[in-house]
Amino acid sequence: MFDLKAYLKEKQQTVNAALTKLWDSSEPYPTPLVQAMRYSLEAGGKRLRPILCIAASEAVGNSKADVMPAACALELIHTYSLIHDDLPAMDDDDLRRGKPTCHKAFNEATAILAGDALQTAAFEVLADAGRHHQGDTFKWLEVTYLIARAAGFSGMVQGQMMDISSEGKGITLEELERLHRLKTGALIEASVQAGAILGGGNLQELIALSTYGRDIGLAFQVADDILNIEGKPEMLGKPVGSDRDHQKATTPSLMGLEQAKARAGELIDSALEELRVFGKKGEPLAAIARYVLERTR
Amino acid sequence: MFDLKAYLKEKQQTVNAALTKLWDSSEPYPTPLVQAMRYSLEAGGKRLRPILCIAASEAVGNSKADVMPAACALELIHTYSLIHDDLPAMDDDDLRRGKPTCHKAFNEATAILAGDALQTAAFEVLADAGRHHQGDTFKWLEVTYLIARAAGFSGMVQGQMMDISSEGKGITLEELERLHRLKTGALIEASVQAGAILGGGNLQELIALSTYGRDIGLAFQVADDILNIEGKPEMLGKPVGSDRDHQKATTPSLMGLEQAKARAGELIDSALEELRVFGKKGEPLAAIARYVLERTR
Repeated sequence: MFDLKAYLKEKQQTVNAALTKLWDSSEPYPTPLVQAMRYSLEAGGKRLRPILCIAASEAVGNSKADVMPAACALELIHTYSLIHDDLPAMDDDDLRRGKPTCHKAFNEATAILAGDALQTAAFEVLADAGRHHQGDTFKWLEVTYLIARAAGFSGMVQGQMMDISSEGKGITLEELERLHRLKTGALIEASVQAGAILGGGNLQELIALSTYGRDIGLAFQVADDILNIEGKPEMLGKPVGSDRDHQKATTPSLMGLEQAKARAGELIDSALEELRVFGKKGEPLAAIARYVLERTR
Repeated sequence: MFDLKAYLKEKQQTVNAALTKLWDSSEPYPTPLVQAMRYSLEAGGKRLRPILCIAASEAVGNSKADVMPAACALELIHTYSLIHDDLPAMDDDDLRRGKPTCHKAFNEATAILAGDALQTAAFEVLADAGRHHQGDTFKWLEVTYLIARAAGFSGMVQGQMMDISSEGKGITLEELERLHRLKTGALIEASVQAGAILGGGNLQELIALSTYGRDIGLAFQVADDILNIEGKPEMLGKPVGSDRDHQKATTPSLMGLEQAKARAGELIDSALEELRVFGKKGEPLAAIARYVLERTR
């Protein structure tokens, strides 16, 4: 029986160690800007995207490529997006993972700039990795490109734009699913793809893992919506029912709670199906998929 | 006699055409997010950074490398930084180049996201260029890396952080110069370096052009400070004296107007000195340096 808890813990430690090292070579003392960047980066994230990247590289049998720079870059981008999402002009959230959000702990200008600089740092880390892996420069450029595509105006930022524009307005289930695929799904899919490419996966493996990523990315958002209704505040790190208070359309609000749970189940089944070809090497990814579903039960 | 006006006009057109093409392959209709991105990108910037990049590549005798993706990426980053600088939590400016700032023309959330997505787009363009120039992948990674370094927490964003932290506080001339070197100088230097690397410059040429970039980057900021006192509103696109109103330390406020002009002159002399080895091929860069100085007179 695969021990997901131990796996996640080990990978979280590895990722956290790599993230900490990013600052070693920076200024001798942390500037307020770097303090704010680190505050949010070290605020207790699950490191889901980096772990998906590592697990995908393992699934394709990676034995030598160092995917850690990509894993770190994904977390830097995810963290920047959370800081900006929480800003007063956006979701206006005071708490994130049970701690004051960046603009509450520092101030609004610092939070905007910390987010900006975390995004830049992600691409600095990716380009730097490419420079140092001379045999693999092309792969690193591919990965940098696909992460940028997933994070920008045709991916994550577009999803966030749709999210804030749709607050208080009626949107269809189809529109909501597109929003979720962009806002959360695109970067999760890119995480899996980055690991698969750097790990040396072939085209078929890359396609299977992309589908897996797309499915669990959407399932993850559906599960989040369900948790926002049924979850415990200490699990959420923010008040239960905040989506309803923001008049946000969610999968449960549009299709009903039971149907939303069924939808999450279907997506996870589809994701698991894609992993079959990887056999035992796909176990961590399969366990992560099942875990996403368990959170909704 | 070198005709700078004609040179700038021609290059601006080339850069604008390349920037416009960036959106051709995006969604069939522009989303509000892309509209906001394009609004700021097309708000009449001088394209100084792209032109410096092109001119530097010409100075080292580039004949074949396509530096346009780097030129575009530099303008995307510059534009994102202006949008975020203008936000209410930052400089709170209503006008930029005589037009409403992005958050005034759209709204604050859209402006934050448009800035975010412009930054991502810069790195998407750079990585994409690297993927398509297979012989030069290493150069593109170098250029991506140096642009990220210049734009992030140890460059431009750090400079902006120092700028907003220092408002209304006394800072020394040394601190102000460091602020300027980070906030404006770093990306201008990176623009010249990117052109030199992609154009195939050797190490000595790269060092000379880096010094040139550092000198004119700082001179440019000093000139801006002088213009903010002596310029005409239609030239500035914003009210004269806004630095004083914001209680911003400027080179003239710290060392006096005449001394500031002398300082700009010294920096431009030093920049011109570095260009000697390039002979006729360095003329556009020399003319740009002289132009920076003329603006202060």
